[in-house]
Amino acid sequence: MVLGKEKKLVMTGDSITDFERKRPVGEGLFEAMGHSYVALVDAFLKNWYPASRIRIVNMGNSGDTIRDLKKRWHSDVLDLNPDWVSILIGVNDVWRQFDSPLRPEEHVYPEEYRETLDQLVQFTRKEVEGVILLTPFYMEPNPGEPMRKMMDRYGTIVRETAKKHECILVDLQERFNEYLQHYSAQSISWDRIHPDIVGNTIIARAFLDALDFEW
Amino acid sequence: MVLGKEKKLVMTGDSITDFERKRPVGEGLFEAMGHSYVALVDAFLKNWYPASRIRIVNMGNSGDTIRDLKKRWHSDVLDLNPDWVSILIGVNDVWRQFDSPLRPEEHVYPEEYRETLDQLVQFTRKEVEGVILLTPFYMEPNPGEPMRKMMDRYGTIVRETAKKHECILVDLQERFNEYLQHYSAQSISWDRIHPDIVGNTIIARAFLDALDFEW
Amino acid sequence: MVLGKEKKLVMTGDSITDFERKRPVGEGLFEAMGHSYVALVDAFLKNWYPASRIRIVNMGNSGDTIRDLKKRWHSDVLDLNPDWVSILIGVNDVWRQFDSPLRPEEHVYPEEYRETLDQLVQFTRKEVEGVILLTPFYMEPNPGEPMRKMMDRYGTIVRETAKKHECILVDLQERFNEYLQHYSAQSISWDRIHPDIVGNTIIARAFLDALDFEW
Amino acid sequence: MVLGKEKKLVMTGDSITDFERKRPVGEGLFEAMGHSYVALVDAFLKNWYPASRIRIVNMGNSGDTIRDLKKRWHSDVLDLNPDWVSILIGVNDVWRQFDSPLRPEEHVYPEEYRETLDQLVQFTRKEVEGVILLTPFYMEPNPGEPMRKMMDRYGTIVRETAKKHECILVDLQERFNEYLQHYSAQSISWDRIHPDIVGNTIIARAFLDALDFEW
Amino acid sequence: MVLGKEKKLVMTGDSITDFERKRPVGEGLFEAMGHSYVALVDAFLKNWYPASRIRIVNMGNSGDTIRDLKKRWHSDVLDLNPDWVSILIGVNDVWRQFDSPLRPEEHVYPEEYRETLDQLVQFTRKEVEGVILLTPFYMEPNPGEPMRKMMDRYGTIVRETAKKHECILVDLQERFNEYLQHYSAQSISWDRIHPDIVGNTIIARAFLDALDFEW
Amino acid sequence: MVLGKEKKLVMTGDSITDFERKRPVGEGLFEAMGHSYVALVDAFLKNWYPASRIRIVNMGNSGDTIRDLKKRWHSDVLDLNPDWVSILIGVNDVWRQFDSPLRPEEHVYPEEYRETLDQLVQFTRKEVEGVILLTPFYMEPNPGEPMRKMMDRYGTIVRETAKKHECILVDLQERFNEYLQHYSAQSISWDRIHPDIVGNTIIARAFLDALDFEW
Amino acid sequence: MVLGKEKKLVMTGDSITDFERKRPVGEGLFEAMGHSYVALVDAFLKNWYPASRIRIVNMGNSGDTIRDLKKRWHSDVLDLNPDWVSILIGVNDVWRQFDSPLRPEEHVYPEEYRETLDQLVQFTRKEVEGVILLTPFYMEPNPGEPMRKMMDRYGTIVRETAKKHECILVDLQERFNEYLQHYSAQSISWDRIHPDIVGNTIIARAFLDALDFEW
Amino acid sequence: MVLGKEKKLVMTGDSITDFERKRPVGEGLFEAMGHSYVALVDAFLKNWYPASRIRIVNMGNSGDTIRDLKKRWHSDVLDLNPDWVSILIGVNDVWRQFDSPLRPEEHVYPEEYRETLDQLVQFTRKEVEGVILLTPFYMEPNPGEPMRKMMDRYGTIVRETAKKHECILVDLQERFNEYLQHYSAQSISWDRIHPDIVGNTIIARAFLDALDFEW
Repeated sequence: MVLGKEKKLVMTGDSITDFERKRPVGEGLFEAMGHSYVALVDAFLKNWYPASRIRIVNMGNSGDTIRDLKKRWHSDVLDLNPDWVSILIGVNDVWRQFDSPLRPEEHVYPEEYRETLDQLVQFTRKEVEGVILLTPFYMEPNPGEPMRKMMDRYGTIVRETAKKHECILVDLQERFNEYLQHYSAQSISWDRIHPDIVGNTIIARAFLDALDFEW
Repeated sequence: MVLGKEKKLVMTGDSITDFERKRPVGEGLFEAMGHSYVALVDAFLKNWYPASRIRIVNMGNSGDTIRDLKKRWHSDVLDLNPDWVSILIGVNDVWRQFDSPLRPEEHVYPEEYRETLDQLVQFTRKEVEGVILLTPFYMEPNPGEPMRKMMDRYGTIVRETAKKHECILVDLQERFNEYLQHYSAQSISWDRIHPDIVGNTIIARAFLDALDFEW
Repeated sequence: MVLGKEKKLVMTGDSITDFERKRPVGEGLFEAMGHSYVALVDAFLKNWYPASRIRIVNMGNSGDTIRDLKKRWHSDVLDLNPDWVSILIGVNDVWRQFDSPLRPEEHVYPEEYRETLDQLVQFTRKEVEGVILLTPFYMEPNPGEPMRKMMDRYGTIVRETAKKHECILVDLQERFNEYLQHYSAQSISWDRIHPDIVGNTIIARAFLDALDFEW
Repeated sequence: MVLGKEKKLVMTGDSITDFERKRPVGEGLFEAMGHSYVALVDAFLKNWYPASRIRIVNMGNSGDTIRDLKKRWHSDVLDLNPDWVSILIGVNDVWRQFDSPLRPEEHVYPEEYRETLDQLVQFTRKEVEGVILLTPFYMEPNPGEPMRKMMDRYGTIVRETAKKHECILVDLQERFNEYLQHYSAQSISWDRIHPDIVGNTIIARAFLDALDFEW
Repeated sequence: MVLGKEKKLVMTGDSITDFERKRPVGEGLFEAMGHSYVALVDAFLKNWYPASRIRIVNMGNSGDTIRDLKKRWHSDVLDLNPDWVSILIGVNDVWRQFDSPLRPEEHVYPEEYRETLDQLVQFTRKEVEGVILLTPFYMEPNPGEPMRKMMDRYGTIVRETAKKHECILVDLQERFNEYLQHYSAQSISWDRIHPDIVGNTIIARAFLDALDFEW
Repeated sequence: MVLGKEKKLVMTGDSITDFERKRPVGEGLFEAMGHSYVALVDAFLKNWYPASRIRIVNMGNSGDTIRDLKKRWHSDVLDLNPDWVSILIGVNDVWRQFDSPLRPEEHVYPEEYRETLDQLVQFTRKEVEGVILLTPFYMEPNPGEPMRKMMDRYGTIVRETAKKHECILVDLQERFNEYLQHYSAQSISWDRIHPDIVGNTIIARAFLDALDFEW
Repeated sequence: MVLGKEKKLVMTGDSITDFERKRPVGEGLFEAMGHSYVALVDAFLKNWYPASRIRIVNMGNSGDTIRDLKKRWHSDVLDLNPDWVSILIGVNDVWRQFDSPLRPEEHVYPEEYRETLDQLVQFTRKEVEGVILLTPFYMEPNPGEPMRKMMDRYGTIVRETAKKHECILVDLQERFNEYLQHYSAQSISWDRIHPDIVGNTIIARAFLDALDFEW
Repeated sequence: MVLGKEKKLVMTGDSITDFERKRPVGEGLFEAMGHSYVALVDAFLKNWYPASRIRIVNMGNSGDTIRDLKKRWHSDVLDLNPDWVSILIGVNDVWRQFDSPLRPEEHVYPEEYRETLDQLVQFTRKEVEGVILLTPFYMEPNPGEPMRKMMDRYGTIVRETAKKHECILVDLQERFNEYLQHYSAQSISWDRIHPDIVGNTIIARAFLDALDFEW
């Protein structure tokens, strides 16, 4: 398991990460970590690697695009002095293009997404031991579906950025694709975006697998 | 407009019809008709045909499959002495097959759907001036998507039943298909099932067009 | 339909327009446009003219007289860069004279109403493609009733202002008068001011008719 | 003051009387008498005639027509062993004809109103010291307005019934007419039916004047 | 009735006056005047003197002693430009001496009370047509009871101040004393301080009697 | 301390005893004993006599007179198989005579009070080890005050009943009288009936003193 | 993994199992399975064994001892026709002995526990494919602590019963003991009984390990 | 009783002291002192020493460590001009080390605890008549349990500080130890930290015993 011992991992993202975490900082007793995959990652690490004493902080923020994430990067990520940082962003960048077609100022198109992600990663990469990038996903099995297709473009950007900056990559779309061969998207998500606990376990498992977690 | 004057129209269905209607009977002041297409149909009739004085009652019930609708048919429809009856049912019959794959007792398969619809229509047809059948729909533009495909089977059953019993047919899937050529499903529905006011206007317009409503 | 394609229409007014719209800006998902005629205008445009892609923003504010509207005109209307602007104001200017007879500082009399409307329209007319003026109304069929009589004076000012500045005029009092020949005011309004969905459809229909909307 | 000493007065009616009274019986501490004219009548009697020790019970019930009142007459009035009974009913009998024109089963027309009132009064008159009849009213100054006109027909029935059975008559419409010469209806009522405290004082004063109350 | 026509009367005091009035200014529609004697005074004036068009504002504030009242005198009274001002203060000045014996900083003793009242009245007397002083009261019939005895001292100060500055005096303790000969204090007040509607009518009646109100 | 070891004490009464106890039986974790003197008696016994292991159950019921207590005596007291029973009743029997003078059916006069208490005690005395009677009280220092005077009559009945049936007597009025020499009633009670924690400690202390509790 | 394919597993117990599950049956969409280890077992099975299609039902009930569980065994377990049944009971049987020492009727002592468990298992064993027994636990690392000591006695009974009836055994106390070598009990539980998500993962993992789950 | 007459005692601490006290200052009517031992100390003093007229203020603050207490010492303690000050702090300083092992910045270790307590006491000792120090406690009877062991170290610091600065010492751990010989910790506390009313009586009694209170 690559994280090492007694490290601090700050996990950022949008509502998929956030899921009712505590403010201003998502750590501590009483469900401060929220109900997303973040709490599961913490629980799995404490169970399988109790001696590693990894400290996890949930800094997801509902509704965020990468443009919003950039604005709070200093205060919400770097100021917390993490050893590791994970980023799961892009879902809203894509979704707004589909659910709010008439409000283009809320859309974040691929070019801006790529540039901003590149900036954040490049800068942060030097400050921490490692950056973990998760691809945004859409729980839609058909790769030809328009929003899925667009999401895949953002996923590709994440893959390329991970490669360029030597980040750990977690390909969530791939994992959901596999799961959707067995169960319908409707059974784990109301809107194909927000996963239930089964979907969150898919994310947490993929996340830990990418860290050479030994089950 | 085929309904005639001073007629009573009882509109049945599931949550798409129901949408917070009043209990036990969905008519009267103060949003008793709920917020679905039913209230729009009433508003349009009152606006364009103020002299027709059509009386509308919303008897939709959230979560209903046709199996549930059958159980309350006598008390909720026939006992109200309608002149016209409309039925929009089948969405939950299909949806449960996808969101609750491990609970088959909640699934209503095509055969049962066809038989029950046939019974309800056959019996009711003799008691009222006319029955209006609306096809269940899924706001998914891809006809190959599994749940859309299944929904189309139920839509076909509705079309055949309408023909067999000389009911007025309202093909909602077709109307949504047209709309989805212009806007994404995400912009009018959270889950591709429950329409916002734009989607409810699509239903109400289709409904009234089928009645030779002249705008 | 005169609005054109991909235009932005900002609709201002008082509680009749507002009706629980989102703050600070009344547009977006989840009923952000509120429950008034504004949402219906949006739904009708999206249904009948899906290709026109009109963007609508509800900037009504409950309780406003034209004096209040003037104060927020810059921030709430002009700063949003609309292509079209609609104004439905004056009901409170009149109503306060009747429900609050002892508090004259809340009354806005005809002269001030005329001058302020003239200023707003004159200035705005140059900044946008068109201004749409809706007459304030009272759901009272008797033109001799004192508050109706007073409201008619304000309606006349709106008509004259529309003519002077070449605005599109929507005569709502006229439309309600027609409707009240068929149904009582009590059936669509608690207080003869705030319309239910039937009344809101009357407004939306009149609004669109004035724009050469083809049903 | 004709009530005498240590008598029990049961005051019945609809929402105008009820106004949040306590259930099942509207008397006692802590606003059990509700916030209508009933509480004012009690307060005035206690103030001006403290030695009379009249016991007042509010048995109004929101939404009631005379048809509803009849059903609960035994349990809600006679079983309480009153010395005096007051009745203010008829507003909903009329109102439903205007606000719910398509639901005739909720309308109580003049004939039924007259017969039922006659029955209730005839029977009760023998059991108690006196019956006080209040005319239903509409806070509309124009006697030609349709609902006011209809309300006046019911008022006439009350007047005739009072005469026939030698009841004390309280002509509320007359009192409101006088008041409306000074202030608009809008200043004391949202819907011209439910009075604020000013309007309730009008009713309480008229009520007591009819009892030869000396201010 | 001495107030004259079209005058503005600002009524100040503590919780007895306040009773859920609207903030920041206690006037307007929808129970803005609260539920105390203030609303009753307004209702009685509108009923018996409809042509006088007196405008009433409730500026009571729960918990206030005269020390608190002084602090807000400018903003809450003078800035409203009243023609008449009424003051019912002193109950908390006394009560705190009894319910909070160990917190002397909350007690306002007679000397401070007299001086502050004198200042407020002297200054205000010149700005308005008249000042109406109401004695603080305790619904305790026994003049020897310690808190009643103390309250009487404050009442005497009010009487003397009224005489010195030629204010209209309303002796509420006297009125309650009379009422308590007929009914117990427990029947109109939970704590012998806060009156129910019967007690508020006692106050309102005494207030109007002092203004030569003719019932 | 006379209770002995491992005994069960059921404490009955009205709202003074009840004070938000758990239903149907007032014992157990999480404030099931309520917030009255009952919880204090339990806490004192557990502190000073931890080895005695007395089990306490709060069976007070808000609003009860002795007439109400009698009705539930079997189910609420005897069925619980107590070793000891305490009774604090009579406050409402008196209070209703003062706060509800016009509703005599809610008054329980001395004769009925004496007879009922006698019956309850006589019957219960044989079933348990001991009955503890607490006098009803009024936090009014003046014995001539009418309600205090009446309460003293009921207190005398309790004293006589205790003597007749050899019950333990707790004279609460006496204890409050002593306390009121130092502090005003207003400082420990809003209405002179319901004590705050200081007043509840007075009761609990008097109760335990009567049981030869050694502090 | 021993459960097989398309089996139904009913999981019973107390509040540790229950944790806000849906009533009357704890299965379905929208967190119907509650937030305990049950939902995690379901999520892990769906993730690691998506093809197995195990159907899980949470039938835990807060506060239950084995005595309560027995009463609802037929309706809540057998009537659901499970293939597998799991039982985690005994915590309250022990806890009540410590938190409610004076209420012995709520204690379930070892003998009754052993007999009842034996009955339930013996009977059920014949009706289903397998029974899974989980030991009750106390998150207290010191085996000499009195409540832990008592809990271990109940754990031994579970172990012996599992052996006697050839049930699958899940030794939860052992698992918690291991975890408590790394972290304090305070970090995963407020009261050493109710686990947070980390503790629930411990249970779920132990449960699945006992089923030869391959991670 | 050493406090003297008419003194002011400010009682500080964490949630054990706070327990829903009023803000900003915890004194006054209506449970302003909260529900902890502070209210009991006040009630006992008023009962047993009614003439002493001690004024008590609760300035506990939930969650505080001594580090937090130091920050508010001036505004929350000294500015209130106390004659006596009591301090019950340290529970959170220890608890965070156990419930939040990965967040060391929230831990207050013995050295910092000793130094800060020394500063606060040394400075305050000169300003007041006396300082009362209460040892932090853990309701765990086993002195070898890790958190109890750590708490005892802090208790020792308190004892030493009390001796050094001649403060009155209240050894709460000792008192709880005695009680736990009779009843389990589970019966008076959910988490072994927050006492119920029995536990609060233990604290209040120990507090008063240390002041030579004569029961």
